[in-house]
Order: sequence, then structure tokens, then C-alpha cells
Amino acid sequence: MSATPSDLGQQVARALAEDVGAGDLTAALVPAGRMGSATLITREPAVVCGQAWVDEVFRQIDPSVRIAWNVSEGASVPAGQLLCRLEGSARSLLTGERTALNFLQTLSGTATMAHQYAAVLDGLPCRVLDTRKTIPGLRLAQKYAVRCGGGSNHRMGLYDGILVKENHIMAAGSIAAAVAAARSQGVSVPVEVEVETLDELRQVLEAGADMALLDEFSLDDLRAAVTMNRAHPRGPIKLEASGNVSLDTLRGIAETGVDFISVGSLTKHVRAVDLSMRFEFGA
Amino acid sequence: MSATPSDLGQQVARALAEDVGAGDLTAALVPAGRMGSATLITREPAVVCGQAWVDEVFRQIDPSVRIAWNVSEGASVPAGQLLCRLEGSARSLLTGERTALNFLQTLSGTATMAHQYAAVLDGLPCRVLDTRKTIPGLRLAQKYAVRCGGGSNHRMGLYDGILVKENHIMAAGSIAAAVAAARSQGVSVPVEVEVETLDELRQVLEAGADMALLDEFSLDDLRAAVTMNRAHPRGPIKLEASGNVSLDTLRGIAETGVDFISVGSLTKHVRAVDLSMRFEFGA
Amino acid sequence: MSATPSDLGQQVARALAEDVGAGDLTAALVPAGRMGSATLITREPAVVCGQAWVDEVFRQIDPSVRIAWNVSEGASVPAGQLLCRLEGSARSLLTGERTALNFLQTLSGTATMAHQYAAVLDGLPCRVLDTRKTIPGLRLAQKYAVRCGGGSNHRMGLYDGILVKENHIMAAGSIAAAVAAARSQGVSVPVEVEVETLDELRQVLEAGADMALLDEFSLDDLRAAVTMNRAHPRGPIKLEASGNVSLDTLRGIAETGVDFISVGSLTKHVRAVDLSMRFEFGA
Amino acid sequence: MSATPSDLGQQVARALAEDVGAGDLTAALVPAGRMGSATLITREPAVVCGQAWVDEVFRQIDPSVRIAWNVSEGASVPAGQLLCRLEGSARSLLTGERTALNFLQTLSGTATMAHQYAAVLDGLPCRVLDTRKTIPGLRLAQKYAVRCGGGSNHRMGLYDGILVKENHIMAAGSIAAAVAAARSQGVSVPVEVEVETLDELRQVLEAGADMALLDEFSLDDLRAAVTMNRAHPRGPIKLEASGNVSLDTLRGIAETGVDFISVGSLTKHVRAVDLSMRFEFGA
Amino acid sequence: MSATPSDLGQQVARALAEDVGAGDLTAALVPAGRMGSATLITREPAVVCGQAWVDEVFRQIDPSVRIAWNVSEGASVPAGQLLCRLEGSARSLLTGERTALNFLQTLSGTATMAHQYAAVLDGLPCRVLDTRKTIPGLRLAQKYAVRCGGGSNHRMGLYDGILVKENHIMAAGSIAAAVAAARSQGVSVPVEVEVETLDELRQVLEAGADMALLDEFSLDDLRAAVTMNRAHPRGPIKLEASGNVSLDTLRGIAETGVDFISVGSLTKHVRAVDLSMRFEFGA
Amino acid sequence: MSATPSDLGQQVARALAEDVGAGDLTAALVPAGRMGSATLITREPAVVCGQAWVDEVFRQIDPSVRIAWNVSEGASVPAGQLLCRLEGSARSLLTGERTALNFLQTLSGTATMAHQYAAVLDGLPCRVLDTRKTIPGLRLAQKYAVRCGGGSNHRMGLYDGILVKENHIMAAGSIAAAVAAARSQGVSVPVEVEVETLDELRQVLEAGADMALLDEFSLDDLRAAVTMNRAHPRGPIKLEASGNVSLDTLRGIAETGVDFISVGSLTKHVRAVDLSMRFEFGA
Repeated sequence: MSATPSDLGQQVARALAEDVGAGDLTAALVPAGRMGSATLITREPAVVCGQAWVDEVFRQIDPSVRIAWNVSEGASVPAGQLLCRLEGSARSLLTGERTALNFLQTLSGTATMAHQYAAVLDGLPCRVLDTRKTIPGLRLAQKYAVRCGGGSNHRMGLYDGILVKENHIMAAGSIAAAVAAARSQGVSVPVEVEVETLDELRQVLEAGADMALLDEFSLDDLRAAVTMNRAHPRGPIKLEASGNVSLDTLRGIAETGVDFISVGSLTKHVRAVDLSMRFEFGA
Repeated sequence: MSATPSDLGQQVARALAEDVGAGDLTAALVPAGRMGSATLITREPAVVCGQAWVDEVFRQIDPSVRIAWNVSEGASVPAGQLLCRLEGSARSLLTGERTALNFLQTLSGTATMAHQYAAVLDGLPCRVLDTRKTIPGLRLAQKYAVRCGGGSNHRMGLYDGILVKENHIMAAGSIAAAVAAARSQGVSVPVEVEVETLDELRQVLEAGADMALLDEFSLDDLRAAVTMNRAHPRGPIKLEASGNVSLDTLRGIAETGVDFISVGSLTKHVRAVDLSMRFEFGA
Repeated sequence: MSATPSDLGQQVARALAEDVGAGDLTAALVPAGRMGSATLITREPAVVCGQAWVDEVFRQIDPSVRIAWNVSEGASVPAGQLLCRLEGSARSLLTGERTALNFLQTLSGTATMAHQYAAVLDGLPCRVLDTRKTIPGLRLAQKYAVRCGGGSNHRMGLYDGILVKENHIMAAGSIAAAVAAARSQGVSVPVEVEVETLDELRQVLEAGADMALLDEFSLDDLRAAVTMNRAHPRGPIKLEASGNVSLDTLRGIAETGVDFISVGSLTKHVRAVDLSMRFEFGA
Repeated sequence: MSATPSDLGQQVARALAEDVGAGDLTAALVPAGRMGSATLITREPAVVCGQAWVDEVFRQIDPSVRIAWNVSEGASVPAGQLLCRLEGSARSLLTGERTALNFLQTLSGTATMAHQYAAVLDGLPCRVLDTRKTIPGLRLAQKYAVRCGGGSNHRMGLYDGILVKENHIMAAGSIAAAVAAARSQGVSVPVEVEVETLDELRQVLEAGADMALLDEFSLDDLRAAVTMNRAHPRGPIKLEASGNVSLDTLRGIAETGVDFISVGSLTKHVRAVDLSMRFEFGA
Repeated sequence: MSATPSDLGQQVARALAEDVGAGDLTAALVPAGRMGSATLITREPAVVCGQAWVDEVFRQIDPSVRIAWNVSEGASVPAGQLLCRLEGSARSLLTGERTALNFLQTLSGTATMAHQYAAVLDGLPCRVLDTRKTIPGLRLAQKYAVRCGGGSNHRMGLYDGILVKENHIMAAGSIAAAVAAARSQGVSVPVEVEVETLDELRQVLEAGADMALLDEFSLDDLRAAVTMNRAHPRGPIKLEASGNVSLDTLRGIAETGVDFISVGSLTKHVRAVDLSMRFEFGA
Repeated sequence: MSATPSDLGQQVARALAEDVGAGDLTAALVPAGRMGSATLITREPAVVCGQAWVDEVFRQIDPSVRIAWNVSEGASVPAGQLLCRLEGSARSLLTGERTALNFLQTLSGTATMAHQYAAVLDGLPCRVLDTRKTIPGLRLAQKYAVRCGGGSNHRMGLYDGILVKENHIMAAGSIAAAVAAARSQGVSVPVEVEVETLDELRQVLEAGADMALLDEFSLDDLRAAVTMNRAHPRGPIKLEASGNVSLDTLRGIAETGVDFISVGSLTKHVRAVDLSMRFEFGA
């Protein structure tokens, strides 16, 4: 599957510190040597995402716990699906349960939502993009989950892409001046400009930007923008639509011919997938 | 207001690292000495939560940014409410915008949902509790937001409360043995036992636990449980109901007389509040 | 045994950084491939505490070192007791020796002192409690050691218990108002009030607190407090005595009928247990 | 005064995390705007040590708290001495109280003990040394406290000094070979050798080491060692005595003419100084 | 100037920990209250880079130190140039001197080298690029320094750009398959392919990549590549030359018409600029 | 070989975070199960240094990668030398390649330069010393590399040695007063004084310092200093020469009889060794 972020280990360590803290007082009720197994099951349809996080939770608690996954990362599964089987110390299974589930239910929730949006665009070249509207501290994981669900990532942060907005244009004096200033920084990242009118889009095309963000354009204006972009001697550049996007309006927007539609809801809201873990302990 | 968690500074540092990384390439388009102001406004009704996080974001980026809040932490406000006014370096305002909004929209979303649940119980002694089903890395902040919205916190983690479940009981041999083992650990934290029948509740009362979790009880069984609890010589202990809880069913459950109702949705789902920041820059 | 804190790995990493720093210049005198064994022996009677820390020291330095413990965590042992046998690279054994001993001698010291206090109360229901007077950076480990020795833990910190003192009462206006304010915060933690007179205890009982701290009460006043508490319609709540506590006065205080006696000396002083490690290296 | 360690800020941050965690639930009972003052007073004679840690505790909690110290770091003061006066937000003073006191009582305890040992040697050139037997995580602070009390520091850790013991000598083949190997590492740190007989000391002198550790030598043997050292063509090197050291035996050992006496008790035991903080809050 | 990386504070903290450690024993010889000033001067021509790091060093040691810079970040200055004047506590100036100089001499060294390369291309559209061959732990700072000196940044790491090499092509089966797989990951980063022949370049153009890396091409082949790229219906894409690049060969390579030339030496070698700090202390 | 620093794991973690960040997007093109091997080869003569860092890079990415080294740490090898062979997951090998090479090429570069300087002194007792002029964040590793190449380490930082300079002397009043103040701090570290004239050296000898730094002395003055040092009743102390040191002047300086010559270039400049990694992947 896709590339997992290098801060995965630290995310898991922090989540365990939050949950275990001074020690798991309840797991201490189970004898230290007791072995057991557990199964992880979906209680609603979902796109599965976060297996590497679950693996890491138990690796940090107790490397002798064994996990056998029954489905692939990114798979669409029905309710009642057995996701994996865990075997090891009963105490370790109990201590890791909630942290493992919290990662899996959160990331699968994002992947599932990304999948719903991506599915609407089936057969069209247009792609769903996420945004920088994310849960603080979880951005890399959420962007990974978006890719798992079939969506695409916009820039990761302020460092790997330039998005020129109204205030930057006013500071620079013009769209052309802003794009030129962006280019002169010596970084090879894409330069995108947010526009609100077709006339501004024309300036963006003339300025030689890589991409334009068409914010809250009507469908007619989106179509006009696509036409202008294709006809322009310095075009076509990439066009991204944003604003008033829902599962209902998505396909219509995509059919105007834009390349990308960005959806803040993908990562600013979370709807955790309903999962359960069932235990079976030995004597 | 309520006590803020001591890891607030680290949460903000991580969120800024995620967003700013190698540097804000777009803010660099604005001249370094340019000053400006910004206003933060709600675009839907909300309970405001997360002001200390917003303050900390700008303190870390640029301590000379000034923020004047127009509403109190925890206030219920309408759409279009001016939340605060920020003044300082235009670059600093732009660099901090998204991270500040991400904290405020996320935590206000949780506080707003907690408020909706708490409002349903108006006039009843019963309280809404959160759970350990939280967004990894954000638990303390989410628990703070639940309190801001009028909900109450269940235990923070595995370290500050004992919740005996079926597997622990089987390991200990009986409810009485499990409670006795929990007490013998030398920690002065509450001992709660999860039960599925009235007979189990009776054993919990006899074992001298502090609280019982009544999982997926019918309303009739909840009422019977309340009655049994009040009549028992070692009662009354605290009763918590869980399972099948929604805004629709909440008041009915509370009217059975239970002390607490726990709601996983409060913290496992996030519905970010819609906010906007508007800038005004000088020359 | 009891639950170990989740920051154990970080504590060990910090202690190793302190001791090893730029590298163990002396261990480098031993050939890299040389194998050896070592034994760890008590030089005075002690309650053994800190085995998981010793294991972690060598796990971080060299996971191939094997440690076989001869006694259980929490056991009372005489002088000259063989605690464990270590086998592995001679260099690794030498490099880890001091850090491992520092943890074991410090935590066993605390467990041993807790055991001395707890033993005095043998046969009484009263329990010895620790306090927040701890060695900075070592609180969770020290609280664990107190439990190992048979003592009990008071709250871990400012976050998992409310202890209302004189200044909070003055700020709130009255004991009743302070307890009500404590309850209204939405946290399900115990509320304790510190009192200096029997009249204040009466107010605490009426306010419905969970626990009272009787500070520097005479034995007569403690007995009167216990009687008042049992007779009160909102009682009995938990009573904790503090002040002027020593091994000599402890049993007398407990015989007044209080539930807990808190002892700052348990964790603010440290009397390390005398241990030695003996090496035997191969060719 | 003396140089403070660069990890001071991190030590304080960890201690605050331990104590404040999810938030100070009790301080929240005091109105947010309430101002106050506090005084810090000794309840027994002490050498004061740890002022920079107290300052840092309040700097991290609330930089607007003002602290005026009444005595110098390292001063010997009687019981009842006013150490400092703090002014600022009442909540901030309450939240920082315990962490600040824990640092001050712990480090002053170590400085006070070091002072007692150093005072016994008054008028003699011999110096008291600490060891690597320290509280895990607090070594740099403890070594600073030893200096504050008039003691001297032995090596900080395994990286800034070489101490050749029996096992290293056996691995190298001879004392001469071990010292030569130590010198050949390319580090300019002192090379010390632990010896148990006068004959071994002679070998150390011939090997050209910088210092010898005379472990559990009788007073007669110590005197003979001092004589041999002064007479040797490659001497005199520094001589350190260790073993069976107490306040009673210290001066006699020093009078043999050794340069240093090392005392593990200085840093492996902690006897916290008794301090109190008194508050006065405004309306 | 350009955007500084968000890990600047942590870099400085680590460097200070390395240098100051248990405390600056020499600065302690200067009385605590002594004030002083210092000037920082070049001893050879340089492009100045790293002012924000110098500022941060003294901010972390002592925020009351004042620094007045005499030249702009990125300026080319002669030997003997006064760079800045510092005023404050003499101890603080001494303690920070070496760490501040180490950052400034290292980053100015990189900026100066980047400037030498960029100057050779004066008047040509071709740009000098850095690589991922950097000093471990210092990459973001070095990339910033390259921009300061007039060079441009290639991708920051493995996460913000795709560079398909021979092994990836073999794994995918063909250049076309590799580019398609790269595109299908859902990340909006540039896709570049490394080629060794003109025929491979043709495949890259047909596959629709964004950029080609022409490794160790002769000047003739570079010219042929530029011609092919301009003529291709899916071109022109960006062309980067690498291999056998020196100050002597650089302009000739650029004149072939390639867009970028990447130079590993810029960041894998460091030639620190010679600087000195001169002190003037009061009484 | 020599002792490796305890921060090695953290250095590697930071370097991997820099390079891998949100994930290795290119390695994801290789099927997850594909196995492979790689060889690491020198492209110029070098002293090999950094094997433990390479091992740690792959241990952190994927502990199942096996590395077999063909040469010893610290060995002098020709161009074309096979250094090691790696076997494991093809993705893991690709992801770790650059970070592993960056450590090895940087540290081998420093070791190689140290070896060149040390070789010039062959047969003389004089040793090459490094300085505190290092790459920020990499000091311990660079000092290790200097030892690997046959050089010696001066003090690690401000905490493990005292170097009295002109400003400290002025603050103390005289060289004698500065040395006495240095001795009175209670730290057992060497005290060195920087001098510019023979008369100052005489004062240093009389003050009883351990070492003198002769800065920019002529060869004649160095010889006179050596003579004075040997004849002085409190001598000989260690003499270190610095200033105007190059490979050409080094032996002449050493022949004056000084004990050490310190060379800032060893660690402030870096000339990475040219290495390459070649892959061979299975099906």
C-alpha cells in the first residue's frame, strides 16, 4: 500500500502515554502469565485504514503479541468482517485494546469518507483533494487515510506548496508580481493562486502559475474557466474547485472539467467507524 | 474557566511543526515589516472552546501578536459572532491562521456537541460522561472541551480509575474477587464494574464497588437497577448507563434515575465548527 | 505485580544519557567480544523494587543481555540475598551497571520505607498514604514503589483529585461553596477538604465532600472526628490524618479510627538500599 | 554562583507535567483574575539551593509572576528564614507551589548534607567528592547542589573520566596495559585506577595514571600510600579514599593526607529540607 | 528574507545542550552582574546566513541580550565586515559565543558556496539545485542557506517529490508503468525520472512525467535532450542535469539549455566561513 | 573500537524524520514483498567511520535488514573497496539508503581528515586535538570520528574543561586569581589558560594550571615555551599550540616539543567521502 509517515512511532507513543499513564490498574487484575487471543470486527461497512498503527501499538506494549490481518489495508469491507486476530499475553491485549481501536476507528473513518467522495467521481478524470483543515497532531496520518480511501493529497503544509491568496496579492501589488515573487524564492514547489473571477484566472494564466483555485465559482463560471484554460497559450494549468462541495454537488462540479475538487470535510470532521474487539483468555 | 492541560504547549508545537515545517513559503511574499489585523468569526452557532490554544499558537510564532477575545471560553454564540481580534505582523498572522483555526474548530465542535447532550438533561441530576474513545493524541484537550460544553469526564485513562469488565471477572473468579483485588492495589481510585444483568449488579453492590456500568439495559431494567441500588444496605453507589445513546433517547434514560450516561460519540466523532478569519493589512 | 508507569522507557533513556553521554570510555578497555556474567546482591535487608527498570536499562543498551531474577518484585529479603544473575557482553554489563543499580537502590529504598510504615499498621484497616512531596521527575516510579512496599497512593497530581485548602475556601467564600464549585467542574474525581477544627469537619460533612484531611489534629480530636463522621447523616466519608507522623506515632493515630494517614517522608526523603554487583568475565 | 545545567528547563517541564497533567482542578476554584502573594520560609537550618529551578517553574507556568529572593544561592540559613517573596496570579502561585518546593527541598537537602561533610574538613586541603550513585534523572542538578554546599564533583558520567577497576585490569592483562589502553583512546580526560593494596598503587604510579582510588584502606595504609606517592619519581598523583566514610570518620581519613574522599551518601540518599509556603490573596 | 524552518528552536536547543551541558564552568569566573558588549566580524568574504539562529541562541540563553545586525541576511560582504553588535550580561555573551558562531559559520559557508555556483549562471535561466546529500540533522537549515545564496531547492526529502530511478523502473516493468504507478498514489507532488540515454528520455516524455534527471550526459547529449524536449508534443518538461559538475563545467552545462543543474557538493561538504567575536566588558 | 555516543539513536531518528517525513513516495513503487541486496562501495580512499549509525538507520526502518561489514570501523581503505553488503526488503533498503550514506560519508570525511593530520605526526609524541568548532547537533559524532581517524578530543563542551581566556583574566584581575577561582568551583576538570606571550605562560605555571594554550606563537616562542615549562618547579604542564595550523606547518610545530596542536578545520569543515550504493533486487 501507500507510504506510512515517519512519525507513526511517536504518534503511538503519545497515544499510549495518554491512555496508560501511571499504569493500567485494571489489567493488573489478570494474572501476569495468562495468555489469550482477541478478534477485531467491524460493526458497519468501512474502508479499513490504520493497520500499521495497530501493529505499532502492540509492538510498543509487548513485541511478543502476534497479529494476523485478514483483509488488506485500504479494503472495503462489510459489517461483521473479521479484520484481524491477535494472540499473546492477556494483559497486553487488554492494555492495548483502546489505543489500537482509537487509531483504527479514526483513520478508517477518514478513509471511508474519502472513498465515498472518490466513488462519486468514478469514470471521470477529476480527483478529490484534501486540505490543511485537519485534526491538530494527526495531519500526516489523516492525509495517508485520504489516499487509502482513494482521494488525493493537496499540499502537506505551508512548506511544500505555495497558495497565493488575496492578501498576498495585495501585498505584492498584482497577481503577476505575487507569482514572480513566489518563483524567486528558489524552491521547486507548485505555485497556485486563489481566484474569485474569470478575469483573475486570466491574470493567473498570464503570470505562469501552475494551478488556480476557483473558489465558490458557479457551474457556468467553472465551465468558462475550463474553456479559457484550455485555450490560453500558457495553459492548460491545473484547475481546482472549492466551496459548497457535498456528495450531492460533487459530480456536477467534476463534469465541468476541473482537475481537482478540494473538500475540507474529509479531514476536519471525523466519523469514527464502529469496531469491536472480543477476547478469549486461557486459564 | 476550567483547568487547561499541561501538554497544551507541546500540542501546539506539534501542530505548528506539521503545518509550517521547512517554512511558510507563501507568507514570505508579504514584506517582513508589514503590520495587520484579523478578526475571527463564527459561521454557525457554537460553544466556543480552545482560546488558550489559539493564544499559544501565536505566542509560539510571534509573542508580539496581540489577541483580544470578545466572548468567554465556553460561551454559546450565534453564527456571525466576532470571537476575537488579532493585531501584529501580517506574516505572523498568516502563518498561524490555519493552526489556530484547526484547534478552535475542533475543540469548539466537541464542546458544542457536549452542550447539545447536556442541554437535553436540563433540570435532571443526571450527567453526560465522555469515554476513552478519543482522537489519538488529543484526549486531554477533548476532555477539556467536554467540560467546556457542560459534560463531565469519565476517567482520563487506564491509570486513574478501575473499570472491571467480563474478562477481568473471569480472571479473578468472581465479581467479589475482582473488586477485592482492585482494592488491594493500594491506589485510591474509584472501582467500577460493568454488568449486563440485575443479578450482576447485586453482586457489585455486595462487593462494595463505587460504581456500576449498566451496559445496554432496557429502560425497565435501568429503573429496577436504580431501585435495587437505593434499597441496598451497601448502596447507593453511582450508576452509569451506556449503549444505544442518542440525543433522542438520552432524556428517557436519564429519567430512570441513573447518575451518569456515557456517550462515546462525544469524542470519537468530531464535527468541526465553521469559522473564518478575515485579514486587514497595512501598507 | 502492580502496574508499571508508561514513562518507564523514557526515564531509563534519560538516566542512560546522563551516565553514558558521549560514550563509556572505560568499558572500551574490555575487548568487544568478551562475554561475562554478573550477580546482584543486597548488602542490607530490603523490599525489592524496580526490576522492570533494571530490565529496561539492559534492553536499551543491549537486548541480548539475559537477566534471571531470583526473587519477586516486592519481596522482603535479607542482606546477602542474590537478586538476579545477568549474562551477556562484558562491555554491556559494565556500561549498564551503575544506572541499573541507581534505579534499584532508589526504588527499593522507597519500597522498604513504605513497608516499615505499613507493617506498623498490621491488623488495622487504616492505610499509609504517600503525598505529592516527591523527587522531581520520579513521581510515578516512587508511587509505584510505595505500592510495592504495601503503602497506598494519594492522588498522582493536581489533575486526578481535588484537595480544597484554606485559600480555596477563602476564595470561594465557604466550605460549602468550595465543594459545590469543585463538583461543578465536570470531573469525576474525589473532592477532599483540609480542615483544622472539628467545626470545619462538620461543614465538610454537610457540604457532601468525599474525604477530609485532618491536619495536625490531637489524638482526642481525631477520635472526636471519627465519631462525628460515623454519626453524620451524610457520612461516613473518608478521613485522612496528616502532620507529626513518625514510625513511633503512627499506630496511635491509626487506632483513632481514621481511614488513612499520609506521610510526606515516604517520597520526599530517599534512603537508597545498599546493593552490589559482582562480575565474572570470560577470556 | 556556580554554573547551572542546560537541562534545567526540561527538568522543570517534566516535573510540571507530572504534577499538573490534565490540569490543576483545585486552583480552578480561585477566580482567574485574583492576585496574591506568597512567602517561602525554612522550617529547619539549611543551605539554600535550587533558586534557578524555582524561578523556572513559575516562568513556565506564568511569566508574569515576580520572585524576589532574600538570600543568596548557597547561603547557610537558620530555621524560620524568609527565602523569597512571590507575587502574581493567585492561581499560578497555587499551581506552581508544590513543584517549586519539591525542587528546592530536594536540592537544598543535598547542598546541606554536602556542607556538613565539607565543614568537617575545614582547614585541611582535602576535598569531599560525590559519585555516580545518584537519583536517576537528577544527576546534573545533584552535582550542582554538591558544589553549592561546598563539596566537589567527581566525573559526571562514563564519558568524562576513566576509572579503571579490577575487571578492566584483568581484561587488559595488567595495570600498566590498562592505563596505556586508556591513554590510547584519544580523549583528554583523567585516568584513575582503583586499587586495594599498596603494591597496586605502586603499579599505578609506574603506569603514569593521573589519580588512584584507594578503596577501603586502613588509616595506616592510607598514610603509607600518601608517603609512597610523594616519594615516587612519577608522583605525586591525586589520591582518593573511599569506603566506610561517615561524618565521624571523615576528618581522620583526611588527615592522612589524601587529596579527596568520595562519599556516595551525598547523592544516593536525599533528606529533603523542611520548607513552607504561605499565601496571602487579594479580593 | 526567505522562510525559516520551524525546527530552528529545537536545533538551537540541541546545539546548546551539546556545548553547555552540565554548565559553563568558565563563564562562572565572570561576576554574575557584569555587563558587556561584543562584535561579530568576518575574516573572509562571505554571504551572511543564519541570523535567526544567532538570535535564537541568545534568546534561549538570556532573552535580555540585545543584538543589532548591521547587514541583511543573504548579503555578500567583504572580510572585516562588522556583522552585528551584541549587548547584555557578559556571562551570557560568553556562554552563547561558540554555539552562535557555529551556526553562522556553517550556514554562511553553505550560502557562500551556493552563491559562487549561482553567480556562474548569471544571465542564464538555468538554476543550481541542491540534493538530499546533506549533513544529518541539518537539512532544513542547509536548504534555507542554499536559497540564501541564490541556489534553489530540489525536493526536501522522500515525501515531497518522486524521483524514479533504475530500480523502481525495473520493479514497475517500464518507465511508463512506473510513472503511472507514481501518479496513482494520490499525492500532488512532481514526478521526475532519472535517465541515462536519450531513448529513456523519450519514454519519460511519453509517460507524461514532470521532470527528467539527465545523469552524466555529455554536453552533446544534453543539447540533444533539450531539442527533443522542446519538440515533443507532451513537452517541454523540466530537465535537470547532474554528474561531473564543478564551478568550471557549470556554465557549459547550463548553456545546453537545461533548466536545472544539481550539485551534491553544496550540502554534503561544508566549508565554514571564518568569523570572530570580540568582547568588551564593563567593570 | 571506541565508545559510541548515547545520542546515536536520536540522531538517526531525526535524520530519518528529515528524509522520510510523511512517507517515502518513491519506494512505494516497489512491491511490498520484494527482497533485495545492496553493496556499499568507496569511490575514493578513506578512513571508514560511522558503521554503528548505518546499522541504526536500518534497525529503525526495518530490523529484519541484515548488514555484513567487510572492513573494521576506523580502517583505511582504497577507492573501490566493498564496505558492506545489505540484505532485506527492497523497499527498506531504498528508504534507508540516503540517510545511511549521509552519516557514513560525513563521519568518514572527518575521520579521513583527522587521519591525514595524525599521520603527519607519526613518530612524535605530539597529538592532534579537535575543538568546539563543530557542526551544530553533530558534535559527539564528530568527536568520535576524530578519534577514529587517530586524532584526540579536546573538551566536549563548556562543562568538562575550563579554558580561561583574556576576558576571564580581566574579570578575575590576574591569571593567578582566575586559576584560583576556577579551582574553587568544586569540579575536578582540567584548568587551561590561553596565553599570547612567554611572560603570561610564566604566570600560568606559577598559578598551577594544568595546561596552557599557546595561541599564534612563532616556532621560536614555542621552543622557548617548552624549555620554560620543563624547567619550571611547578611544571611541566601540558602545552597546546593553536593558530596557523595546516598540513604543511603541522610537523614543524610538533617538533618544538608541544604536547598538543589543536585544529579547528577538523570539525568545522566537512569534506564528505564519495560513496555509492548498488542494488540488486529479486522478482
